[in-house]
Amino acid sequence: MKNLITTALLVLVTLVQAQTTTSPSKEIQVNFQLTAQGQPSYTVKYKNQDVILTSTLGIELKDIPALEKGFSMINSSEKAMDEPWTPVMGEYAVIQNKYNQLTLNLQQKETGRLLNIIFKVYDEGVAFRYEFPKQPNLNYFIIKEENTQFNLAGNHKTFWIPGDYDSQEYVYNETQFSDIDVSKLDMNNGIGLKTIRDNHRIQSPLMMKSANGLYLNIFEAAVVNYPVMHLNSVPAKYQLTSHLVPNAIGDKAYLQTPAVSPWRTIFVSDDARKIVASKMIFNLNEPCKIKDVSYIKPMKYVGVWWEMHVGKSTWDFAGSQNAQNAADGSLKPSGKHGATTENVKRYIDFAAKHGFDGVLVEGWNVGWEDWFGNWKEDVFDFVTPYPDFNLKAVNDYAKSKGVKMIMHHETSGSVANYERHLDRAFNLMKEYGYPAVKSGYVGRIIPRGEFHDGQTMVNHFNFVARRAADFNLMVNSHESSRPTGYSRTYPNYIAAEAARGNEFNGWSNGNPPAHETILPFTRLLGGPMDYTPGIFEIKMSYYDKTKTEQVHTTLTKQLALYVTLYSPLQMAADLPENYERYLDAFQFIKDVAVDWQDSKYLEAEPGDYLTVARKEKNGERWFLGAITDENARSSEVKLDFLTPGKKYKAIIYQDGKGADWKDNPKAYEIKTMTVTSKSKLKLNLAKGGGTAVSFEPIQ
Amino acid sequence: MKNLITTALLVLVTLVQAQTTTSPSKEIQVNFQLTAQGQPSYTVKYKNQDVILTSTLGIELKDIPALEKGFSMINSSEKAMDEPWTPVMGEYAVIQNKYNQLTLNLQQKETGRLLNIIFKVYDEGVAFRYEFPKQPNLNYFIIKEENTQFNLAGNHKTFWIPGDYDSQEYVYNETQFSDIDVSKLDMNNGIGLKTIRDNHRIQSPLMMKSANGLYLNIFEAAVVNYPVMHLNSVPAKYQLTSHLVPNAIGDKAYLQTPAVSPWRTIFVSDDARKIVASKMIFNLNEPCKIKDVSYIKPMKYVGVWWEMHVGKSTWDFAGSQNAQNAADGSLKPSGKHGATTENVKRYIDFAAKHGFDGVLVEGWNVGWEDWFGNWKEDVFDFVTPYPDFNLKAVNDYAKSKGVKMIMHHETSGSVANYERHLDRAFNLMKEYGYPAVKSGYVGRIIPRGEFHDGQTMVNHFNFVARRAADFNLMVNSHESSRPTGYSRTYPNYIAAEAARGNEFNGWSNGNPPAHETILPFTRLLGGPMDYTPGIFEIKMSYYDKTKTEQVHTTLTKQLALYVTLYSPLQMAADLPENYERYLDAFQFIKDVAVDWQDSKYLEAEPGDYLTVARKEKNGERWFLGAITDENARSSEVKLDFLTPGKKYKAIIYQDGKGADWKDNPKAYEIKTMTVTSKSKLKLNLAKGGGTAVSFEPIQ
Repeated sequence: MKNLITTALLVLVTLVQAQTTTSPSKEIQVNFQLTAQGQPSYTVKYKNQDVILTSTLGIELKDIPALEKGFSMINSSEKAMDEPWTPVMGEYAVIQNKYNQLTLNLQQKETGRLLNIIFKVYDEGVAFRYEFPKQPNLNYFIIKEENTQFNLAGNHKTFWIPGDYDSQEYVYNETQFSDIDVSKLDMNNGIGLKTIRDNHRIQSPLMMKSANGLYLNIFEAAVVNYPVMHLNSVPAKYQLTSHLVPNAIGDKAYLQTPAVSPWRTIFVSDDARKIVASKMIFNLNEPCKIKDVSYIKPMKYVGVWWEMHVGKSTWDFAGSQNAQNAADGSLKPSGKHGATTENVKRYIDFAAKHGFDGVLVEGWNVGWEDWFGNWKEDVFDFVTPYPDFNLKAVNDYAKSKGVKMIMHHETSGSVANYERHLDRAFNLMKEYGYPAVKSGYVGRIIPRGEFHDGQTMVNHFNFVARRAADFNLMVNSHESSRPTGYSRTYPNYIAAEAARGNEFNGWSNGNPPAHETILPFTRLLGGPMDYTPGIFEIKMSYYDKTKTEQVHTTLTKQLALYVTLYSPLQMAADLPENYERYLDAFQFIKDVAVDWQDSKYLEAEPGDYLTVARKEKNGERWFLGAITDENARSSEVKLDFLTPGKKYKAIIYQDGKGADWKDNPKAYEIKTMTVTSKSKLKLNLAKGGGTAVSFEPIQ
Repeated sequence: MKNLITTALLVLVTLVQAQTTTSPSKEIQVNFQLTAQGQPSYTVKYKNQDVILTSTLGIELKDIPALEKGFSMINSSEKAMDEPWTPVMGEYAVIQNKYNQLTLNLQQKETGRLLNIIFKVYDEGVAFRYEFPKQPNLNYFIIKEENTQFNLAGNHKTFWIPGDYDSQEYVYNETQFSDIDVSKLDMNNGIGLKTIRDNHRIQSPLMMKSANGLYLNIFEAAVVNYPVMHLNSVPAKYQLTSHLVPNAIGDKAYLQTPAVSPWRTIFVSDDARKIVASKMIFNLNEPCKIKDVSYIKPMKYVGVWWEMHVGKSTWDFAGSQNAQNAADGSLKPSGKHGATTENVKRYIDFAAKHGFDGVLVEGWNVGWEDWFGNWKEDVFDFVTPYPDFNLKAVNDYAKSKGVKMIMHHETSGSVANYERHLDRAFNLMKEYGYPAVKSGYVGRIIPRGEFHDGQTMVNHFNFVARRAADFNLMVNSHESSRPTGYSRTYPNYIAAEAARGNEFNGWSNGNPPAHETILPFTRLLGGPMDYTPGIFEIKMSYYDKTKTEQVHTTLTKQLALYVTLYSPLQMAADLPENYERYLDAFQFIKDVAVDWQDSKYLEAEPGDYLTVARKEKNGERWFLGAITDENARSSEVKLDFLTPGKKYKAIIYQDGKGADWKDNPKAYEIKTMTVTSKSKLKLNLAKGGGTAVSFEPIQ
């Protein structure tokens, strides 16, 4: 009798081959359906408009049949979830996490294999993943390719970068979808290592805007033990399909059931602010796995860094990035080495005087004479200082001044070498009291044949975060794969670069004025970026008259970036001596908070402008940042985020008369006024300009 | 004027395009010549017989012109060297190291690049290497292939194994050179992972014998930062050419000038004993780089190991090598786990009672339920014991009994995972006082696409030895690339497996009786092997009546192996309970030394027989081992190695009446007699048999 019922139920549920769910707001509707061939497919609508047309799902496996067709639905279930959580650091004290979940349990008839598709629908977007349950017919498997389609409903405007396996440090290209074409780009862009295999392959997060004003973004969350997903575009069909970054022998991912893919995410809203404000990517990651998070703290820092970028000093001790010197062990000092004990003490003094938490020093350890571009396995050992850098003296001095040193580990891409030395490197940090490390991965990866975005490297970056947690250390990785929310799970992974940072303005064609208005819609969705804002000496001709490179913003836009580009780790990147000449403007960098109780995105348009207000954590001050692209911009924002009834002293740092990112970038003015929650603030942003405001309650 | 003289000299030396040198004995003659195309070539003669016919040398490089043709000789120099040295452990207290060196300085006219060829000619063979000096026109380079020819003078008898990138655990095939053909082999041989790409590619060391009785061997020494060399054979031409094992993307070696290739070696003698007795491979390695060698000590050990091979117990705790159990973390003990605290204590008791130095325990750490064959990255963590193995209790107990524990690290080929955990693993060893680790590399290598014999793995094995030295630890690697003398430089790398060991007799077609007569002419030339002799219960039917596997020797041949197969690390591999039943024969294993003052190779014929006498270091005892292949053998050896005038009590362990490896392997007899240096000893070896003798001075 029981069998009969089971069979009857089975017949019943296998007949239901489609399921629908919506966001809590009901604005987003997801429909799942098995095609006539038994292939999973889905559609997404927003306020009854098509967002994703029928798009199929499937996984190709190596040596065994694909998980693609011939499925029937053996069960489905739906639930409404509301799981707010408290981040260690972040834009909000509490992060809302409300969604409807739809689980489809599928079975492939011919093979008997099970596959689940799980949707989570939030008010600002849709996420879904593949789940490979533990099962008799599937244990170890190798993914050959994931074929997840995103069929768009129109020829949207897109902000794209090439599908480079080794770098995301590109300028965003703003074109119609149908005009995506990597071959048309100028590749003289300062990126040293490029691995591009297809002219219509691009990266995610891919920000888009439809002709009728819908904002869309395709990205992913929780990339753990899986390669990064790039996107193959078919311009004529407005189609995107997942492309996983391969390993050295062309395989994509090695998995064992039970396993899951990362979440594939589709943000959609008719209000761009909802996308930049979203924490959906973090919500899709596992909760924090670190028990004692007391050592994880935000940091504002200065460092021996920009002076190398502008050519004032060098990372290397011997003044030559040339192997021929290094090999014989008889390095002669060039006199241009930046990381000398004396120079570092100068930075420590500056940090102490102006209330910074930390000092980063790059080029402190031997190896820089011959480190780059030769796929060299043994470069740095991460523990041996140059003879003119006294580890103990520097750290003792920093301690006496109440400043923390930030360690630097450039791996030159030799991950094999870094992993061999990692425990020693971390032990050295603990010995001297370094709380955090900035790591770098400039160059081709060793194990040779691997790419920055492959499963091997994803696993490495995550491993370093976990291992650092064992030592109570924080990590800020540069040239890593771009974050997809892992810092929720390991909040000691405080920041990453993984996009085109401010440094490119120092020695390449740089970052166009629109760049920083796009980053919050792309790179920042997955985690904080160490963008290194705060460059006051905008033009490199200041250092060398023959140079034409420059930062593509005004000075006050550099200030506004501390608010618009969220990170719990913020550098004041310019030289101390430059800040000393602009102490009034520098005051904003000194004042601005780096961890927040709340954030309000007041105005947002990708590629055009962004205005954000944030309230500091454990305090009553608010800060506002407003930036624009190459166009000047005026607007008026309500200050209704301020506490009603309170008076605030507003200090407004804004572009001065005639300011212009290109011809007059350093013109700024600072105004003070008293405001309340009923006030309105007029913003006047120059071309490539910005405004930064601090609001301090008046007692 | 000075320039004129330089030019004149240059003209003079560039005219000399050939050079000859000889061994100190003058028996070996090497001639170097540039061909008409300016390609380096050489010949070797032994007592005026052709050994190597004109053979060319050259290196193909990736992306740039080869270092092959168009060379002229810009200088050459010769010197006679005599550099005896004292090994930390070994077959001899002092190792002779006498050779003539010929250096050829070549320049490639079109590219200006420099290449040196260095020959060292010993009395028992020739070695040469490529040297890439530091130079303006060659800094970083990638080797695409090394084209070193060895053109043989005839269709020699050869002892070969297939050119498998991942394993050397093959039975040697004894055929004429012209019959080398991997496709003809029975591959049902117990080897789990095979990577064979060419049916005429074989491995070195390649032992050969010419029709007129010359013994030849082609091998290599000092494989450091370079892949293992395999040999492409052209049967019809009696030609061998080097083939370097590739990495994941097909490259061979990544080098930076100044750099050297390993030495390519050609042993030649009309006396086979000179080849097995040779230390040429060690002489060609760098001297010891460890300052304090006091922790490096020979060890005789027993272990929880063979009982798993014979099926009495298991490595895993839960009784199943099945992921489905392991993943949910709720392992249920099978009751068959070998590495229990209780069982290990039994081995410790046995070791203490019989004077062994150490006890190895395999299967002590979690992961064995799902470790093999799936290219899994995270298997073992090398620090977490199974719940029934009490690390502290075991080590405390061992200490109380004066016995050392030997650590076991099975990596399952996941080198990425091992390197990430190595420092933690070594720290655990230091915490508990383990002096040595046996490491294992069963399975496909991670980084995926790499092979056991590629440059990446060569670097790994050498790295582990160096890192172990930092911790004052000794290493015994299994499934590593075969040693080429690195244990001279890092003598803490005390032993390796890297050939077909005794274990194969337990569960496969096993090792034919000739096997152990070939190993000293091949695998052992590069370093000690952990062969794990001493199996008394020869037939596996003892454990399970349905089994037909067996050791392919008699019991006393197992004893003789302790002398014939040199290693400072020797296991008594059988079960304690088996030894307890043959205590009289076991006495030899208890008595035999493992470090030697002197060694005398009395009789030797590869594939047939070997008789060796050795004098213990720091003592007056001698030990003799004699083994034969599948044929019974009688001979008489002079005991003139004994100290003249001294009387010795000789205990002779020999095959008993009717003994035979196949039908009656355990028949043995033990005789005692008094001998002097004037005595002769009659040896009567059964089919697959052996004799072991201890000589103790009579006061």
